Amino acid sequence: MASSLANTPEPPYYAVIFTSLRTEGDRGYGKTAERMIELASQQPGFLGVETARGDDGLGITVSYWTSEEAIANLKANAEHRLAQEAGRKTWYADYRLRIAKVERAYGKD
Amino acid sequence: MASSLANTPEPPYYAVIFTSLRTEGDRGYGKTAERMIELASQQPGFLGVETARGDDGLGITVSYWTSEEAIANLKANAEHRLAQEAGRKTWYADYRLRIAKVERAYGKD
Repeated sequence: MASSLANTPEPPYYAVIFTSLRTEGDRGYGKTAERMIELASQQPGFLGVETARGDDGLGITVSYWTSEEAIANLKANAEHRLAQEAGRKTWYADYRLRIAKVERAYGKD
Repeated sequence: MASSLANTPEPPYYAVIFTSLRTEGDRGYGKTAERMIELASQQPGFLGVETARGDDGLGITVSYWTSEEAIANLKANAEHRLAQEAGRKTWYADYRLRIAKVERAYGKD
């Protein structure tokens, strides 16, 4: 899993903001979540990912992409679709997926 | 702190994606973070907020806004500016702030 901040280029680029509330128990979730991040990072147009889940079960994963086409490619990937299906049925009590165009960005320095 | 997903309206709207790596120790952080979320939620144009921090110290807070003007108002708030300053100096080893226009959104149902 990513445990550092993403070093994205100058905007514009795209962000996929995935927020979720987990159900109780792992049931294969951790392994698949890691695999999905690995899969995403191998796709064309991937710029980086940041992920966090708090003790209350609320998780946020933001992945960054060069274009909308790159996001569409990920969605079309068969392995990703299977994981989405399992997510809907088993792992998530609730979730939101938002696709956004990053227009401005600032860092610590 | 928010521990549920934000029920945002149909896009378009704006997202402020704040990702950070905490330094060690609280040093007033928790109280100020709660206060900043309270402050944001009282601003005109506020649509919701989602926040998570993992055990590795990486945190993500995404707040949602009707317009860029609403985000500018928050940035201009004196109390918010003081907290930003403390964040830069004391609380964050690193951070990124990204302002993005949400173009599409999906939920579990």
